[in-house]
Amino acid sequence: MQYIKIAFDVMGSDNGFKPAIEAALKILKEKKDLKIIFVGKEFEIKSFLKNKKYNLEQVDFFNCEETIDMKDGIMDIRRKRDSSMVRALELVRDDIADGVTTGGATAPFIAGCIFILKRLEGIERPAFMPVIPTILKNKVTLLLDVGANLESDPEDIEKFAIMANAYSRVIKQVKNPKVALLNIGEESTKGTEIHKKAYELLKNNKYLDFYGNLEPRYITSGFVDVVVTDGYSGNVALKSAEGMGKNLLTEIKNSLTKNIFRKIAAFCLKKAFIEVREKFDYKNHAGAILLGVNKIAFKSHGSSDAISFYATLSMTYSAIKNRIVEKMKEALKIT
Amino acid sequence: MQYIKIAFDVMGSDNGFKPAIEAALKILKEKKDLKIIFVGKEFEIKSFLKNKKYNLEQVDFFNCEETIDMKDGIMDIRRKRDSSMVRALELVRDDIADGVTTGGATAPFIAGCIFILKRLEGIERPAFMPVIPTILKNKVTLLLDVGANLESDPEDIEKFAIMANAYSRVIKQVKNPKVALLNIGEESTKGTEIHKKAYELLKNNKYLDFYGNLEPRYITSGFVDVVVTDGYSGNVALKSAEGMGKNLLTEIKNSLTKNIFRKIAAFCLKKAFIEVREKFDYKNHAGAILLGVNKIAFKSHGSSDAISFYATLSMTYSAIKNRIVEKMKEALKIT
Repeated sequence: MQYIKIAFDVMGSDNGFKPAIEAALKILKEKKDLKIIFVGKEFEIKSFLKNKKYNLEQVDFFNCEETIDMKDGIMDIRRKRDSSMVRALELVRDDIADGVTTGGATAPFIAGCIFILKRLEGIERPAFMPVIPTILKNKVTLLLDVGANLESDPEDIEKFAIMANAYSRVIKQVKNPKVALLNIGEESTKGTEIHKKAYELLKNNKYLDFYGNLEPRYITSGFVDVVVTDGYSGNVALKSAEGMGKNLLTEIKNSLTKNIFRKIAAFCLKKAFIEVREKFDYKNHAGAILLGVNKIAFKSHGSSDAISFYATLSMTYSAIKNRIVEKMKEALKIT
Repeated sequence: MQYIKIAFDVMGSDNGFKPAIEAALKILKEKKDLKIIFVGKEFEIKSFLKNKKYNLEQVDFFNCEETIDMKDGIMDIRRKRDSSMVRALELVRDDIADGVTTGGATAPFIAGCIFILKRLEGIERPAFMPVIPTILKNKVTLLLDVGANLESDPEDIEKFAIMANAYSRVIKQVKNPKVALLNIGEESTKGTEIHKKAYELLKNNKYLDFYGNLEPRYITSGFVDVVVTDGYSGNVALKSAEGMGKNLLTEIKNSLTKNIFRKIAAFCLKKAFIEVREKFDYKNHAGAILLGVNKIAFKSHGSSDAISFYATLSMTYSAIKNRIVEKMKEALKIT
């Protein structure tokens, strides 16, 4: 069988390798053409797997002794050559795996992707791009950069737009993606000098259908297909929205279980709440592709649990299946 | 009767003066010691008031012919001397009113506050500070700056902390306010150079109980009493959370009214939803004080409706009643 192969760095996230492996076993049951290579401490991983049921054919191991942890910086990619993150990236570089998924530290991962997987031609700064749910049915918004870069110049932001535009057209099948610039006001004169210059570049790019500035309030409103921003603001916008979503759902839950009467009525609405939670709970959108590198590379939140890892593995799987990198390259040639 | 007097610039917001006046009439019914001076086109305002019921004693007018609109910049404060915004500020400067409320353009309002009302001693950059609801009962978080400044240097951010710390102690009666720096990661090494320097300043300020960095995800979690940030990031964080809150509530509403069965169950839970909405709907938190000026000055969203204006007028009223500026001055002397 021709498997889709993911190199899964299971070591470096906050919660240890167990939720990562639980997530892997879940998706392996569903996707019979998927093989996962567990990269990490083989002995520990195998001990954990001892009593689990799974198809042996779909699992492989790559043993390594080091782990890049959350405190490590970009230089540790060169220092910890036998770390699970570096090894997972090398498996992809050497075409042993088709894509990589990690919950490990962000900065070393980006550095590793750039050094080991290399960048797409013409792209200087890759960007993290999560897929954001919106209140419109079947409409998602691509948001980038959300933190691969701390500071971005106007030219970087234009490149983010070009990449996401290609991704939206080719992968999301949007005919003319609307691209907006995240800004604190709608007028073209709003924001810092970087925003004003980025606005001009985007407006004058004839390959983009530029919507103008979009206020952070409307990221989840589905007005546009792509929202571009510098990495710092993008990260703040994403995490702020995620936190509000989570806390609001908690508040509603508390309010609906205040007394027995409410509990009964709420029970009748369980399915409705599950629908909303599935759409907006950020655990289901915990992964982001690193757009702009030569291979498929996904990062899951450092604090990922099994639900989050499952979501990110699913995204990695479908990115491979859709041949995202090849299609991105073609699309970038056109624009 | 000794009235609390608000100079209310009713002209410059997106939705015209009508929602502003509706909100004023509502609060006047509730607060019998409040007088509102409607600043704007007297003839138009009076025509609108013709068939309304209100206590004549509680209303006053200041006629002026010009309006500062959303496109106007800071120089228009000097150009449009007879605008409702300038006149409202002058009424406060001259102690004819005790505080000002506007829904007008942000940049001219800040400039007007600085030029006409003057800054507090030692404060170079005033900051907008909304009061953020949290999932903890009776706990709010003060967030600043949310957009009075585009860029803030580390010293500005430290001043924001000192001001909000004083406000929290004196007005919110918090004994030892916990103060955090908004950042994209918890570690002290995260963020831009500005964040790293601000972190050091805050950590070394012996008058502050510094919590460390707080990720945007936890703004509404109630971990701290004060969150400080540069104006751009603060604005992005606030608006992003507001948008998520609004869209999530919309999504829930749509899901709960999908069929008649759900509608009935949801009807039984109406009170629970109203509780949550009242706490988290940003219309009820639409106002922000401009902290750091010599008088009480509140700004409501440019797109305020009657609910938002009512909330902002309530905040202005209670700020005056609590003698916020005097208490801030005392508190700033101590730290």
